[in-house]
Amino acid sequence: MTDPVPAGRGYVDLGFARVDTDRRARTGDPEVVYAAGKTTEEVVAIVATLRAAAPDRPALVTRAVPETVAELAARWPDALVERSTVAVGPLPRPAGLVAVVSAGTSDEPVATEAATTLRVHGAGVVRVTDVGVAGLHRVLDARPVLRDADVVVVVAGMEGALPSVVGGLVGTPVVAVPTSVGYGASFGGLSALLGMLNSCAPGVVVCNIDNGFGAGVFAARVARAVDSARSTAAGRSGEPPA
Amino acid sequence: MTDPVPAGRGYVDLGFARVDTDRRARTGDPEVVYAAGKTTEEVVAIVATLRAAAPDRPALVTRAVPETVAELAARWPDALVERSTVAVGPLPRPAGLVAVVSAGTSDEPVATEAATTLRVHGAGVVRVTDVGVAGLHRVLDARPVLRDADVVVVVAGMEGALPSVVGGLVGTPVVAVPTSVGYGASFGGLSALLGMLNSCAPGVVVCNIDNGFGAGVFAARVARAVDSARSTAAGRSGEPPA
Amino acid sequence: MTDPVPAGRGYVDLGFARVDTDRRARTGDPEVVYAAGKTTEEVVAIVATLRAAAPDRPALVTRAVPETVAELAARWPDALVERSTVAVGPLPRPAGLVAVVSAGTSDEPVATEAATTLRVHGAGVVRVTDVGVAGLHRVLDARPVLRDADVVVVVAGMEGALPSVVGGLVGTPVVAVPTSVGYGASFGGLSALLGMLNSCAPGVVVCNIDNGFGAGVFAARVARAVDSARSTAAGRSGEPPA
Amino acid sequence: MTDPVPAGRGYVDLGFARVDTDRRARTGDPEVVYAAGKTTEEVVAIVATLRAAAPDRPALVTRAVPETVAELAARWPDALVERSTVAVGPLPRPAGLVAVVSAGTSDEPVATEAATTLRVHGAGVVRVTDVGVAGLHRVLDARPVLRDADVVVVVAGMEGALPSVVGGLVGTPVVAVPTSVGYGASFGGLSALLGMLNSCAPGVVVCNIDNGFGAGVFAARVARAVDSARSTAAGRSGEPPA
Amino acid sequence: MTDPVPAGRGYVDLGFARVDTDRRARTGDPEVVYAAGKTTEEVVAIVATLRAAAPDRPALVTRAVPETVAELAARWPDALVERSTVAVGPLPRPAGLVAVVSAGTSDEPVATEAATTLRVHGAGVVRVTDVGVAGLHRVLDARPVLRDADVVVVVAGMEGALPSVVGGLVGTPVVAVPTSVGYGASFGGLSALLGMLNSCAPGVVVCNIDNGFGAGVFAARVARAVDSARSTAAGRSGEPPA
Amino acid sequence: MTDPVPAGRGYVDLGFARVDTDRRARTGDPEVVYAAGKTTEEVVAIVATLRAAAPDRPALVTRAVPETVAELAARWPDALVERSTVAVGPLPRPAGLVAVVSAGTSDEPVATEAATTLRVHGAGVVRVTDVGVAGLHRVLDARPVLRDADVVVVVAGMEGALPSVVGGLVGTPVVAVPTSVGYGASFGGLSALLGMLNSCAPGVVVCNIDNGFGAGVFAARVARAVDSARSTAAGRSGEPPA
Amino acid sequence: MTDPVPAGRGYVDLGFARVDTDRRARTGDPEVVYAAGKTTEEVVAIVATLRAAAPDRPALVTRAVPETVAELAARWPDALVERSTVAVGPLPRPAGLVAVVSAGTSDEPVATEAATTLRVHGAGVVRVTDVGVAGLHRVLDARPVLRDADVVVVVAGMEGALPSVVGGLVGTPVVAVPTSVGYGASFGGLSALLGMLNSCAPGVVVCNIDNGFGAGVFAARVARAVDSARSTAAGRSGEPPA
Amino acid sequence: MTDPVPAGRGYVDLGFARVDTDRRARTGDPEVVYAAGKTTEEVVAIVATLRAAAPDRPALVTRAVPETVAELAARWPDALVERSTVAVGPLPRPAGLVAVVSAGTSDEPVATEAATTLRVHGAGVVRVTDVGVAGLHRVLDARPVLRDADVVVVVAGMEGALPSVVGGLVGTPVVAVPTSVGYGASFGGLSALLGMLNSCAPGVVVCNIDNGFGAGVFAARVARAVDSARSTAAGRSGEPPA
Repeated sequence: MTDPVPAGRGYVDLGFARVDTDRRARTGDPEVVYAAGKTTEEVVAIVATLRAAAPDRPALVTRAVPETVAELAARWPDALVERSTVAVGPLPRPAGLVAVVSAGTSDEPVATEAATTLRVHGAGVVRVTDVGVAGLHRVLDARPVLRDADVVVVVAGMEGALPSVVGGLVGTPVVAVPTSVGYGASFGGLSALLGMLNSCAPGVVVCNIDNGFGAGVFAARVARAVDSARSTAAGRSGEPPA
Repeated sequence: MTDPVPAGRGYVDLGFARVDTDRRARTGDPEVVYAAGKTTEEVVAIVATLRAAAPDRPALVTRAVPETVAELAARWPDALVERSTVAVGPLPRPAGLVAVVSAGTSDEPVATEAATTLRVHGAGVVRVTDVGVAGLHRVLDARPVLRDADVVVVVAGMEGALPSVVGGLVGTPVVAVPTSVGYGASFGGLSALLGMLNSCAPGVVVCNIDNGFGAGVFAARVARAVDSARSTAAGRSGEPPA
Repeated sequence: MTDPVPAGRGYVDLGFARVDTDRRARTGDPEVVYAAGKTTEEVVAIVATLRAAAPDRPALVTRAVPETVAELAARWPDALVERSTVAVGPLPRPAGLVAVVSAGTSDEPVATEAATTLRVHGAGVVRVTDVGVAGLHRVLDARPVLRDADVVVVVAGMEGALPSVVGGLVGTPVVAVPTSVGYGASFGGLSALLGMLNSCAPGVVVCNIDNGFGAGVFAARVARAVDSARSTAAGRSGEPPA
Repeated sequence: MTDPVPAGRGYVDLGFARVDTDRRARTGDPEVVYAAGKTTEEVVAIVATLRAAAPDRPALVTRAVPETVAELAARWPDALVERSTVAVGPLPRPAGLVAVVSAGTSDEPVATEAATTLRVHGAGVVRVTDVGVAGLHRVLDARPVLRDADVVVVVAGMEGALPSVVGGLVGTPVVAVPTSVGYGASFGGLSALLGMLNSCAPGVVVCNIDNGFGAGVFAARVARAVDSARSTAAGRSGEPPA
Repeated sequence: MTDPVPAGRGYVDLGFARVDTDRRARTGDPEVVYAAGKTTEEVVAIVATLRAAAPDRPALVTRAVPETVAELAARWPDALVERSTVAVGPLPRPAGLVAVVSAGTSDEPVATEAATTLRVHGAGVVRVTDVGVAGLHRVLDARPVLRDADVVVVVAGMEGALPSVVGGLVGTPVVAVPTSVGYGASFGGLSALLGMLNSCAPGVVVCNIDNGFGAGVFAARVARAVDSARSTAAGRSGEPPA
Repeated sequence: MTDPVPAGRGYVDLGFARVDTDRRARTGDPEVVYAAGKTTEEVVAIVATLRAAAPDRPALVTRAVPETVAELAARWPDALVERSTVAVGPLPRPAGLVAVVSAGTSDEPVATEAATTLRVHGAGVVRVTDVGVAGLHRVLDARPVLRDADVVVVVAGMEGALPSVVGGLVGTPVVAVPTSVGYGASFGGLSALLGMLNSCAPGVVVCNIDNGFGAGVFAARVARAVDSARSTAAGRSGEPPA
Repeated sequence: MTDPVPAGRGYVDLGFARVDTDRRARTGDPEVVYAAGKTTEEVVAIVATLRAAAPDRPALVTRAVPETVAELAARWPDALVERSTVAVGPLPRPAGLVAVVSAGTSDEPVATEAATTLRVHGAGVVRVTDVGVAGLHRVLDARPVLRDADVVVVVAGMEGALPSVVGGLVGTPVVAVPTSVGYGASFGGLSALLGMLNSCAPGVVVCNIDNGFGAGVFAARVARAVDSARSTAAGRSGEPPA
Repeated sequence: MTDPVPAGRGYVDLGFARVDTDRRARTGDPEVVYAAGKTTEEVVAIVATLRAAAPDRPALVTRAVPETVAELAARWPDALVERSTVAVGPLPRPAGLVAVVSAGTSDEPVATEAATTLRVHGAGVVRVTDVGVAGLHRVLDARPVLRDADVVVVVAGMEGALPSVVGGLVGTPVVAVPTSVGYGASFGGLSALLGMLNSCAPGVVVCNIDNGFGAGVFAARVARAVDSARSTAAGRSGEPPA
């Protein structure tokens, strides 16, 4: 009952997991460990392998439980720890600028996952917090920041209205992330998800519920592309992000 | 197989329908004919009966098909015709003021149903149209109107974000009406309905999808109560609305 | 990665939360702390800040766990404690009258949240409990109370039929709150929510599942408006509620 | 590709349909033709076969389109025609008594299907119409009828609250039939269905949406059982219903 | 904020609950305590009150946690304990006969709730267990039992196919109870519920998911009606069931 | 805006469609034209191209409207026409045996699609019709046929219980196809789909609603594999099916 | 009942619609007319107004019925007509490059809407068609095109798997558009939508079902940003797209 | 209340469960104990009974908690333990070959359940792991293995795209198993389930979410049928699998 397919190029086999080491070559993205459902020992082993294989770029760990976070921080004291997201290794030079905007304090964990993912994936980040649509003056005040960014990631739960408002204020591409914040008829984030998919502001695209990581990967790719265009045209060397 | 329960007080039996003539005494609301699924002849017969029974107050017809609307307008030339909603008979004195706000031009049929219902149920109406959240400046300009109203009825489809924005701008009670405007993941208005139920602005209450009539009945009751309080305290005679 | 938008007027920044202190000016509502997901320490800190900033009006805490409730009661011995809802500070003069009606004993937590929210938001409250539609005589007996109120808040789970019955008995505006009481095909309150949205009694508006707070805010705004109309016309000074 | 299983006892093969002629022996129910999706010619042919095979008992046709109804009425002038339901042949002696109660005029087609099914299946029927919960006085007036029946079939759309009210008034077994009457969040009868399944009145059982036929079959079985018990004990001959 | 509606006739107020003592007069059913969400102390107090008020008939407790069950058994040693269902007090004479049929061993808790409810509500019970449709021979063997019963209660989870098979075998009225047994696409019993509502066997009616209690109340009413008809006709005294 | 990817090997470009001519080499299946949404002219053109390219094997057309069926039959008089499914060209030698079982007459269109697909894909077919679970004797009579088949395809709507019964009777692999037959809570076939996915008989696999074609493709692959094993072992030449 | 809010700056009032002429200043996007639900006359009138106001840039009409398309083409012979999408007026210089990839021929209408929207919004477009995952060789052949694009828009119905495959092949940002292509359990595109939201390839963002327009607006913004960065750095003048 | 139906042939009654010992004769499958919801003692007792009754063939235990697994391993040291699946007793000779393919490491528990079920049900197994569609090269490398198998079982969560890719690569019959791996809009595996049901690759059939057991039973039946055909034709004795 063993696997008859030989481990191909671009895979490292850790016994309990295979790391797609070819992925960076194909997509330009760094290695990521989705810690949900893995033991602390497994996460640490994968990160150690990745650190040894590529000491010059970071490994990103998402959805880690506190025990795993603590162990990673103890083992790699210079790790960047942001709630359940941990980056181990040197961060790349920030390329471009992404604004991560959140509607309420309960949306912070998802916004933080997006922001840390962005930094590990080589994008510059600016945060705008707590600008829900029930108090419009703050999001209106943030217009200059939103306009100057290469992409805006908007994180919101409940009715998920903030991306529509942001999408109507500026022409910057908007990536919306619904969160599971809410209760009753929010149905675990379904309400925010549907709201964002039906946004009356054209040009809003949407990620899975609570998927700050996916929004970060996407937005970083755009920010790096814009930055790379700038750099190339200006004659600067197009150093890869990680 | 005949019905052994005698027609009670407060019912007029037209053969194909019973009109609850006791309803006005219990609730203060006028008679209403929901025309969907009824023939033009049936609607006309009901309205004629109601006009004869109470010449001093209007009968409201909702969801009428064009043929029925035309027949009602031909039979009662002074009828108030607003799309599929028709009011036959003298309108009551407007009491209080309700702002009916709509997000887009496609929401107009529902907003019109709400506005006409309000007038027939004895409330004053002011309309604010086409103020969707993708262009915030117009709803911001409307703040004085929203603040001065006794109630605001907000009609919106797609993501249904407008009630949250209005609810955050003013302290006026907000009644939200989701519409079936949209496609794909709007699921016939479900998206707007969920958005409004999960509004981050406290004090927003919600009606069924496309139910401009229900919002109008509710808002008129509030407006009449406020107006009645004013009139009574000021020593004016508390004339019933219809 | 710091927030480049300066803290605007109308916000107090506690580090882990921003309080919208401008909200009262815009909407007339008091400050509210939604305790779900916050630590006891955080809730106490926010309340302390609010008490210091406005000693003459109450702060409302909703959805507090027992430990937080105990700590609030210990710190502010004169706090009004009603299950998971706590009001700290002097309550405003009750304006108008709202009847809070519940269908069964399991609906009490939501009805209590509505009632306490109403008192903190400046409305008078009368409670009618345990009047489910499977035993009609009690709700029939309650007719005078329902008729005299400025608004009726009806709280019910399971099939959510009570608002239809109440809405047919009296002309008072009815705000319906579905609860998650039930099992199986109640789907966490969805059954009651749909029942209320489809009420055959016109003039019933609906809140999110278990959202006693939202119903209280809305109903208090209506009650205050009616009371203010009375007071103004009568020449009394229109003292703000909190 | 022919069917290798021989036509068993208890089947008549009409080419385009097989009639389970053994069914009556197993269940005591008459033959039924569900006309939806069948041509007028097919329905007439099936009924003719059934009439020839058993001239002393009726055949029931449900969900017939107007053209089919007209053809059946022309071919069998003494047929009992009730909207889209047609009974051809002598009806059985009515056994027991079933009350068929409907909430609104739009629910009549389903209530009629139930009532005609009951008569063809050998039960006595009494109708109570238009007793929706928004006007309680009529359903309260109907209490004696409801109490004296062997079973009550309650037909209602929208929020489906009527079975709960009836179930709380009397101890008669209640069979609830949700209808697709409504719009928006009624989702084609889902709202009424969920409401009835979650009824707070114990002892309410439910059929599929718009399934007046199924309710009639069930209720007739109960009524016949009660009547048969009466007859047997009284020494009367237990004549089968059809 | 006290309740201004006086405790009517037919209510006993225990402070934390009101018992509808008029219910038996209206419906003939005994008193029932739904223990879910109540403390052991509360359940014991209610039962004690009921026992004192009516020593000659039982009180039924459903959905009790083990601790409550143990306390009830300790306090009333002659109580009938069936899993989470407990009956305290003398059971009525069994009237009529109800077959309670279950598809698998996992459905037993719901079948037991139905059976015990039936006994407390005055019906005779016969159990047929573990006759799922994947092994048809046993349900075929049970035909005589099913045919002789006054009603059949069929309890099944997963695809909920057993009621269709039983409904096609005999003419006895079938009450189907879907259970939450299953995983994945059973969606907490939704699959079984929909299957039963769409049964191709006419005359199958359905209860809420896991609602053995409701099926028991309904079936007992039918069984008592049949038995009462027998007794009355035979000149026996129609003793009420409890 | 032209397509820069060159038409690869294994594609024929008809302008309005590309036919994957490599597919047969990869999977052994014949060419199929899904006619829904295509004009009669388009379907005829594709079939003509396929006939010219491979005169020795058939082309299968599914979901054709009557006009298209008529045109195909006129153009290729020896075509096999089965309702909306048409096979043009010589059928392969039948390999193995698949029983296609349907629950009711309304399920015939889907069963026919499966049966014709099977024949075109090189499998032998035996049909068993109208054996719904409400009359078990016929499916019991069919046991020998079901046992001797290599695969059984079971087609059923409403509650979708037939696959569970068949799966419990014999050890033959069962492929279940839910149909959209039903109304109300069948929700367009969802009820039958969920029932089949939750079958209590192990070894039942499921296709999309109304997908007789997919079931036919799958079952034919299995039948051909079994037949090929027989042929190979017996020393017969393993002629490809089409 | 007139609208008391003055027409603000940035709106042109056509009586039956208001055009947000300020939108281009805020977002850089051209004017768009969503033709669904509008008469041909209304669409023509809006386009004529837009053409007169800004002769140097195009107006985009989406979701036009054939009659409207024909009228637009007759009135403006140089209009770009692509199925139901029409662009009137000079197209901007293409900036950047967007690959629009579709899975099957049935997805073409949505892919065409995306492609035309892109061109009108100032982006260069390359099309890759008919590369569904059931025949991988063609999408593998398209890798160079996908890698060289600034953004990839992937349009797919049924299970919506193509974005995951594309997202794993290249590092270009992927915008996925689910279509309503499919039947049965595709539930109008819900299946494809959920598939795309749950993509195992990070960096995939999603639009509403059939929303080729929204994907085009978003992707054009990204393409223009990349192109603008290139141009600015290279010292070229940053001409606005339309 | 005892069960009046005598234990038929083919049942062993353990008091708390009945084992269908006739099942093997009907279907050829071994005995299976679904351990979810059973105590360790109950599982051990059932296995002991089965071992005693048929020492020459295995008993399969699925969904056992760790404690039960440990107890089974202690009691029967030669048991085959694979995560929560345990086989006690001698495994049958492997017949045919089934490839079990999984998309990611999180899908392993379900793939393991399928693989162990296959072995106990008499099929040969080959495993291919971690070949998700976001890295196509590995699944392409596995083509020879997939082509040589008699059946392929594909296990995947999230968007469930792998069966479509496999189904397009080879003509081997594909059985797809969706898993509950994912979060947010995966809705507990619904997303993968819908994706697989809507696969654009014909010939893909689907099991319930996480139902590795069902896929194993079905695939083993096919593999045994193919192997049996080979053996019979070759003149080998057709030894039953277990």
